Amino acid sequence: MKDFTYNGRIYYSPVELTMAFIGGTWKMPILLVLRKGKLRYGELKNNIPHITDKMLYSQLRELEKKGMIERKVYKEKPPRVDYFLTPLGKRSIKVIDTLNKFGEHLMVVNGLMVNNRKRPQN
Amino acid sequence: MKDFTYNGRIYYSPVELTMAFIGGTWKMPILLVLRKGKLRYGELKNNIPHITDKMLYSQLRELEKKGMIERKVYKEKPPRVDYFLTPLGKRSIKVIDTLNKFGEHLMVVNGLMVNNRKRPQN
Repeated sequence: MKDFTYNGRIYYSPVELTMAFIGGTWKMPILLVLRKGKLRYGELKNNIPHITDKMLYSQLRELEKKGMIERKVYKEKPPRVDYFLTPLGKRSIKVIDTLNKFGEHLMVVNGLMVNNRKRPQN
Repeated sequence: MKDFTYNGRIYYSPVELTMAFIGGTWKMPILLVLRKGKLRYGELKNNIPHITDKMLYSQLRELEKKGMIERKVYKEKPPRVDYFLTPLGKRSIKVIDTLNKFGEHLMVVNGLMVNNRKRPQN
């Protein structure tokens, strides 16, 4: 049986480990937003619809702990904090792009349309 | 806001849709096991360690409903049922391979070793 332990949990495949690193609702959106370069906390928040501060903080901490992002604190007043992708985080972008492309294919196959939310015509 | 609805749920990105199709603990292992060709229920079960019958049945039904696998029932006694990947399911294999490769990289980066479970030497 090919299994291994990470952080006290047993994993049965590398895929499971990948999902522990980038799975869940918010990790991939955060990583994608950082693909173009470093961002401050407020910029991150503005670019990820519906995320709460509590969730964004905890996910950033987790991504940092897992080596996917880094934060740099500048000694300014008020203090400035930048978040950016590590090489590992950059590598994850290719994986997320693959998931995104397959999702777009699923949308076509299932005839799903993006909601345009146009105002009704008078 | 680019969102869309599938099965009464709102999705905010194609990645989320992908995870609805192949996410969770068991869907990817099931799809991977079917990559080499059709299998009977018992063969599937034997090739996916730790899965219960209840879980395997429900996941197979869900994958069928989503168009990832098909089942063919042969009128034999006892009845024989084969499961196999649809073209969409085959396409998902490439996505899962990408996740798997990244997971292997994460194992290297984090110095994780597969448990060999060797018997202790006398």
